[in-house]
Amino acid sequence: MKLNDRGLLIVISGPSGVGKGTVRKALFEMKNHDLIYSVSMTTRPPRPGEVDGVDYYFVTKEEFLKRISEGKFLEWAEFVGNYYGTPLDKVEEQLDLGKEVVLEIEVEGALQVRQKAKDAVFIFIVPPGKKALYDRLIKRGTDSPEMIKKRMEKADREFILAHKYDYIVVNDDVNNAADRIMAIIRAEHARTERTIHAYMKMLKED
Amino acid sequence: MKLNDRGLLIVISGPSGVGKGTVRKALFEMKNHDLIYSVSMTTRPPRPGEVDGVDYYFVTKEEFLKRISEGKFLEWAEFVGNYYGTPLDKVEEQLDLGKEVVLEIEVEGALQVRQKAKDAVFIFIVPPGKKALYDRLIKRGTDSPEMIKKRMEKADREFILAHKYDYIVVNDDVNNAADRIMAIIRAEHARTERTIHAYMKMLKED
Repeated sequence: MKLNDRGLLIVISGPSGVGKGTVRKALFEMKNHDLIYSVSMTTRPPRPGEVDGVDYYFVTKEEFLKRISEGKFLEWAEFVGNYYGTPLDKVEEQLDLGKEVVLEIEVEGALQVRQKAKDAVFIFIVPPGKKALYDRLIKRGTDSPEMIKKRMEKADREFILAHKYDYIVVNDDVNNAADRIMAIIRAEHARTERTIHAYMKMLKED
Repeated sequence: MKLNDRGLLIVISGPSGVGKGTVRKALFEMKNHDLIYSVSMTTRPPRPGEVDGVDYYFVTKEEFLKRISEGKFLEWAEFVGNYYGTPLDKVEEQLDLGKEVVLEIEVEGALQVRQKAKDAVFIFIVPPGKKALYDRLIKRGTDSPEMIKKRMEKADREFILAHKYDYIVVNDDVNNAADRIMAIIRAEHARTERTIHAYMKMLKED
């Protein structure tokens, strides 16, 4: 029995190359969960086959800028002339339905979310060491040596932001990491600050 | 990979009659855990078959009182002329070995532990409602109507102490409650305040 029926906003972040996407995928492949992945909003035109509300919410630049000015994004960024953001109202709708909304975002975006969503759960995925991160980037084989050097420098700046998160999860093994995140979600639902109101209400009504 | 190898002190408490003992038993019957049950110290003489260090640590009254004056108990109480307490040093030894030490104690004792062990995890077990607690006491059949009335009054005073705990777990189903406690233990090991030092050390050494 869950005392609070509302879903949690789960922010999964961590240094570039740590394997956030793989951990998130393993998480969604687990059984018995109410996780959904947050759908981003963008001003970029849909590609063939992309469905509005599924792949992205497609909006005009005017609409996007209006939403920014109204504070309607959990986080947003501009990337090669297009805007991308996480729409606050859509996330709230899903949370009210009891869904656990997962955001897998870069460290910069996560710190923006922190400002807007105080009760979200912030999870920082880290490699089992700097060398492990370096080895993973080499093994992935998608980056030039120059790019790998840049990523490692960026990771160095991001590592020290760990203290801004609620949890630090080591991605030594992707299933272990996903398991631990699932435990965090279960545990967070029982945290006193999330349950005390429902609990007091239950006592009164009984 | 756990960033912190130290065990956690888990304090399981809740109103009288809520089924703390049953939940704790279900917890220990789960697989793959490092849980141990804290052994109490007492001045009461051993009963036939009781083993020192297993059932209790048996000590003299002088030794017990000396330990109280030295602040060497996480909590202690006197009960019909004998003293009972949780020895701090024994608990610390086990935590250092990576054991998760479980204390299943009354609300009063738990609040004493809160003073001494700031980093312990405090879990408040609650019934799915007042009526459910009443029904359980009746069904248990060990208490007189007068005693049940007293227990319900005590529970009323204890219910409102829920906010002093880190987690509120509803004992609607004993295995659900045990599962949730196990998730809490896993999650707590990843909490930033418990992992940040080990994580920073790992980065430096790498």
